[in-house]
Amino acid sequence: MEMIELIAKKRRGLAHTPEEIRFIARGAGEGTLPDYQLSAWLMAVCLRGMSQAESVEMTRAMADSGQKLDLSSIRSAKVDKHSTGGVGDGVSLALAPLVAAAGVAVPMMSGRGLGHTGGTLDKLESIPGFRVRLDAAQIRTQIEKIGVCLFGQSESLAPADRRLYHLRDATSTVESLPLVVASILSKKLAEDLDALVLDVKTGSGAIFPELSRSEELAKALLRVSKRLGLRGVALVTGMDEPLGRAVGNALEMRQTIELLQGDRRAGDFLELTLELGSWMVHLGGKSRTPAEARILLEGLIRDGVALAKLRQIVDHQGGDPRVLDDPGLLPKAAASRALSSPRSGFLSRLDARKIGEAAVLLGAGRAFMEQAIDYGAGILLEKKLGDQVLKGQTVATLYGSDDDKLRRAEGIVLSAMNIVPRAPKLKPLIRKVLK
Amino acid sequence: MEMIELIAKKRRGLAHTPEEIRFIARGAGEGTLPDYQLSAWLMAVCLRGMSQAESVEMTRAMADSGQKLDLSSIRSAKVDKHSTGGVGDGVSLALAPLVAAAGVAVPMMSGRGLGHTGGTLDKLESIPGFRVRLDAAQIRTQIEKIGVCLFGQSESLAPADRRLYHLRDATSTVESLPLVVASILSKKLAEDLDALVLDVKTGSGAIFPELSRSEELAKALLRVSKRLGLRGVALVTGMDEPLGRAVGNALEMRQTIELLQGDRRAGDFLELTLELGSWMVHLGGKSRTPAEARILLEGLIRDGVALAKLRQIVDHQGGDPRVLDDPGLLPKAAASRALSSPRSGFLSRLDARKIGEAAVLLGAGRAFMEQAIDYGAGILLEKKLGDQVLKGQTVATLYGSDDDKLRRAEGIVLSAMNIVPRAPKLKPLIRKVLK
Repeated sequence: MEMIELIAKKRRGLAHTPEEIRFIARGAGEGTLPDYQLSAWLMAVCLRGMSQAESVEMTRAMADSGQKLDLSSIRSAKVDKHSTGGVGDGVSLALAPLVAAAGVAVPMMSGRGLGHTGGTLDKLESIPGFRVRLDAAQIRTQIEKIGVCLFGQSESLAPADRRLYHLRDATSTVESLPLVVASILSKKLAEDLDALVLDVKTGSGAIFPELSRSEELAKALLRVSKRLGLRGVALVTGMDEPLGRAVGNALEMRQTIELLQGDRRAGDFLELTLELGSWMVHLGGKSRTPAEARILLEGLIRDGVALAKLRQIVDHQGGDPRVLDDPGLLPKAAASRALSSPRSGFLSRLDARKIGEAAVLLGAGRAFMEQAIDYGAGILLEKKLGDQVLKGQTVATLYGSDDDKLRRAEGIVLSAMNIVPRAPKLKPLIRKVLK
Repeated sequence: MEMIELIAKKRRGLAHTPEEIRFIARGAGEGTLPDYQLSAWLMAVCLRGMSQAESVEMTRAMADSGQKLDLSSIRSAKVDKHSTGGVGDGVSLALAPLVAAAGVAVPMMSGRGLGHTGGTLDKLESIPGFRVRLDAAQIRTQIEKIGVCLFGQSESLAPADRRLYHLRDATSTVESLPLVVASILSKKLAEDLDALVLDVKTGSGAIFPELSRSEELAKALLRVSKRLGLRGVALVTGMDEPLGRAVGNALEMRQTIELLQGDRRAGDFLELTLELGSWMVHLGGKSRTPAEARILLEGLIRDGVALAKLRQIVDHQGGDPRVLDDPGLLPKAAASRALSSPRSGFLSRLDARKIGEAAVLLGAGRAFMEQAIDYGAGILLEKKLGDQVLKGQTVATLYGSDDDKLRRAEGIVLSAMNIVPRAPKLKPLIRKVLK
């Protein structure tokens, strides 16, 4: 098979056979196909599309391109969650221990922050000593013991996706729906799951800001999941403002610990954790309905069982468990600055993407993959969309290493906010639930 | 300027500004843009197209990406010919000395054979000692002295085209009209020409087999040439059967020498040489009409002036001039095989592409760029389209290094021919003349 013929075929808008798709995925994973041919093909896919059959085959072939987890020794249903990424979205941190506390096995593969969005692995690493680079045997053993593990994508897992992801990022071919679907689901397929809960973001901080595109992605993910034998549900959720009150690694870790301690201040963060968790528990066979699961999860928080599960995770993955009793031990920024409201009114806009960009500027994220992170840096939001503010009142506190960064970030945060005389109409957090 | 933004722009179908086009051409030429970004962009151009303004700017920017010839010291008009490539198309070999004999300066930049088409440089190199790698000063000096030079594209001439050409070849983005136009004309623009005659092939052996696409290419080439201040004319000519009777390097060189010696057997080869030459002489200001130029050229052949000019070229470029008196001194193949007609009738098909492929198999061409050439290998056609053949009569003689190659090539040549009971209607050689 010649790659140039396959590029020509896709350029003409024709569909690939399963053999052709496997040839491309294998060539991408093993490095036998050159970057320039893969990029030309990616652009052709971007502009000509892929049929559902191609998308399914691409996902399967990418999963098959590397090592897979073998979790057959675990009797409980294995359920993971995938979010398309947002700002302040530390949901995985609370969700993994909470759902595991309910008896569902949770192999939770997570990513790093890039651009304006944060990454679960970075947030976990704000706990001194916490290890996220685990091999397949370590992951399996930990899930056998405590029912849950949070880990990064290893070099050997879906290497075709790793290669294509970098190329898509560099060639403006990220937004192709079948490629997004294959990228997300190939990694999940390699995790040996029974079910998957998808959190597809919509709004200013999401990959696809428009609701219609987000819904299209959610539907495509579900369709392909089902064809691959993975049960699932997809929630389309708002990402116009950051989730919760914390944006930044240690800040979000602290918010998680406080949530599991029973703190209910981070309203939408708690709400989304409970919604996603309910579906995970329900799909994992531990409740007859999601509503029943939600009652179960509320109890597990109230009784400290979920926090105890987080303690087990931290303990097994080498982190300092003292942070769970005293979150003040988490890394702190060198400096901070309170941002006062320039006028009185109601917060009608708190642009998630801009807040994310301000957090990156403060040191909480990365503009490029090799950049070091300031774990203490970030933003604590005192006010959220719809809240009333008075002139001079603190709307947010910025954390960073020096005054220059704080001043520049303040300008960005101010440009991310609108304050209007009347209380705005708010959109619900959960826009759609697709099954 | 960020390349990823420019890729995104073209992916969305938007037009580039001249600055953007220059950024891309410079980045391709200087090697600052990576292959994978250029390939993705090429595919986007292929599928989204380019406006005429973009095509003009791309051509100019590619010409500007490297060194240019400076032929301002030459007083005669400088005219070159470009052919989109065919089988048996050794026209340049006869055309360059013939037109130069008429007093027009001919800086003739030529290429090498690749795939089923031959290359003028390879044909010239079948003359022992002939040099085609000349620098700008050598080319200028020779044109000052004898009015003509045949040379290869140097490393420093239009390096952006060199880079993009290789990528297009490897990523199935060759057929994009604006890219073909920019590739052809950027090199001609770097030659410091006054006028250009274009020979756009159509038929089985051409880049675009369909007449409509060939005509479209011819028109696009003329439009962009004019916008760049280059006078021109484009002939759309038939490439259903090979041109002339010889396919192969020394075979075509010999045919050329014989033509300039007054041999008129290679009818269509002579016809096309005279047609293209007439336009070159006319555009070069040496005749009031092309018809007048044709009479002049016929005389220059008859009187041996054109052959004397070829002798000067061979002499100046290090070749052995004795081949001009005795073409038998040209390289010869080790073996040959006469192909007999399987039945009586008229030759109604002699597929140029297949004959070209058979010649490559025999060793006359290259399947890949580094392959060595057997200068003596090739095919002599005893019969051409429309000719009557008798069963058992020789229709072609194959030349190659061994019997195995000859047998395999024979099979291909047989599959390239149809013999029918009645004389077929033939299409004219010159399909269109566009000004």
